[in-house]
Amino acid sequence: MPELRKDPVVGRWVIISTNRAKRPSDFLHSKVELKGGFCPFCPGNETKTPSEVLAYRPNSGGGGQKNGSGWTVRVVPNKFPALGIEGTLNRQAEGMFDKMNGLGAHEIIIETPDHDAHLALLPVENIESVLWAWRDRIVDLKQDRRFKYIMIFKNHGEAAGATLEHPHSQLIALPIVPKHVSEELEGARRYFIMKERCIFCDILRQEMENPIRFISENDDFLVLAPFAPRFPFETCIIPKRHESAFENLSSHQMINLASALKQLLLKCEIGLDSPAYNLVLHTSPVEESFREYYHWHIEFIPKLTNTAGFEWGSGFYINPTPPEESAKFLREFEVSRTIQRIK
Amino acid sequence: MPELRKDPVVGRWVIISTNRAKRPSDFLHSKVELKGGFCPFCPGNETKTPSEVLAYRPNSGGGGQKNGSGWTVRVVPNKFPALGIEGTLNRQAEGMFDKMNGLGAHEIIIETPDHDAHLALLPVENIESVLWAWRDRIVDLKQDRRFKYIMIFKNHGEAAGATLEHPHSQLIALPIVPKHVSEELEGARRYFIMKERCIFCDILRQEMENPIRFISENDDFLVLAPFAPRFPFETCIIPKRHESAFENLSSHQMINLASALKQLLLKCEIGLDSPAYNLVLHTSPVEESFREYYHWHIEFIPKLTNTAGFEWGSGFYINPTPPEESAKFLREFEVSRTIQRIK
Repeated sequence: MPELRKDPVVGRWVIISTNRAKRPSDFLHSKVELKGGFCPFCPGNETKTPSEVLAYRPNSGGGGQKNGSGWTVRVVPNKFPALGIEGTLNRQAEGMFDKMNGLGAHEIIIETPDHDAHLALLPVENIESVLWAWRDRIVDLKQDRRFKYIMIFKNHGEAAGATLEHPHSQLIALPIVPKHVSEELEGARRYFIMKERCIFCDILRQEMENPIRFISENDDFLVLAPFAPRFPFETCIIPKRHESAFENLSSHQMINLASALKQLLLKCEIGLDSPAYNLVLHTSPVEESFREYYHWHIEFIPKLTNTAGFEWGSGFYINPTPPEESAKFLREFEVSRTIQRIK
Repeated sequence: MPELRKDPVVGRWVIISTNRAKRPSDFLHSKVELKGGFCPFCPGNETKTPSEVLAYRPNSGGGGQKNGSGWTVRVVPNKFPALGIEGTLNRQAEGMFDKMNGLGAHEIIIETPDHDAHLALLPVENIESVLWAWRDRIVDLKQDRRFKYIMIFKNHGEAAGATLEHPHSQLIALPIVPKHVSEELEGARRYFIMKERCIFCDILRQEMENPIRFISENDDFLVLAPFAPRFPFETCIIPKRHESAFENLSSHQMINLASALKQLLLKCEIGLDSPAYNLVLHTSPVEESFREYYHWHIEFIPKLTNTAGFEWGSGFYINPTPPEESAKFLREFEVSRTIQRIK
């Protein structure tokens, strides 16, 4: 069983993953090779993954078989999970340290049957299906009272940490709220106590008055560069209407989120020459369905050549690209209709 | 002038560096090339760097010339600084956002005249000189009341963010205390309020009673794997005697720090096949010379193949190597005396 351990000074929980334990020798010459070989996520190989927990088979007329083919999106438990799904937390001390069982769920959302596809180049309807799969899994896992937070993210490309090429995103359900989430919640709560307004709603209003960091919008979503981004081209997709939890989205919003996401990914794919990227859903912890002070959003960070080196060393962020410049570039970059349709 | 901007939600300050501004096109095909070409840090090229702020010329009999050759360690301002040294902070609002001038110092500690050397393979005395240079620069910059924190770190190897091959470390003096530092201070302060003991001193004692994460020690320093490390082989060098500020080291401690550091670097260099790494000095902010609750230390993180990908995406750390295993490996790895002497 993996272990969750808490840093005694800063209070950060870390998974010490014994399942995937790496011995020192594993680090020598262990470069990840993404290309070629057998892919467990491809259609026809459904039995090579753990049994699916969700799949959409829209064209099977309801006759699709579990773990059979014909799916458009398929969700399976990770074969090498960072956390174990069985058992209890068993919180305990180790001297002055705190630890508990590494209990949780780790799932893979296989975004398309097409091994060579990119999320950016899928039709909007398919992207929407991926987002529905995120939502459906959150709604299901929320019923398990052992989980406090459900984290959804996507690592695209080796430089962003992907270890398999087939397009996929990941879900991790945790018995704790991760530090980066609780910091955001705490900051937003402090602001709300002072102003009785959601800080994200205030940011939205201000950024629309003087749209120098504005990238794009539709009826339901705004795409922005943050005021103090850590990385070049860091971008935020945020719903215009206040809502603390992603899973409360309306169908209308879901279509518009898929569309905003596709636009952003396409602009980066073409304008920034197919960068690796990370995408993280920031949503409310599960125990409360609505928070006045928190506002869910998606954080998008392309991994641009070596610019991410500095803060590794210093623990401090230096961003060489002002967000006003990256926003201008993405705002003005036209993705031609031909490209959108052909791909 | 670069700008310091504060994230309105989590309160993290970020440098938006206009000096080194990257336009979108700079990210295309801009792979850093470390090898070959002209090196401004090599002896004979002293005029190609900004004028030195410190240099040790032990063999010149006091006759060494500023910006001349004959130095063993040389400190120069960064030619492309992330922060500007002139002017005032000029704190101001931009609507609901907070910003100030990116005031600060950014210096390069050139660790040796030998372009092809490695810190790990330098004689202990030379490593000690590098540490003295860190100290001397901190003591000097502390007099500038505009600075709140002096950060010292080293990025070794391209994967760790180094952009120049010649061995060097970096210093950044900041008008704010970085978030990762204030979190550590705050956690240690909370513990002190509760227990009236330094949390780091308590950790030291506990780790020596059951030394499963122990790596090595000498009279003054302990080398340990942390209980909840974020990365494989993350390691901490910590003084045995309570002291909050690095610059208060005795000469005796300085020699032993150089020796502990060399041992650790050599073990990793040989045992882990010359990994890229980051090394960060965690020391007290400058305004107070002694804190009962804080204990300075050095954090060492080798960058092992692609294992650092996950947390980029998730904002959450999964460490595949239990610290007890990495500590055992480093503890038991013998660096032969021959290697130590020859290199």
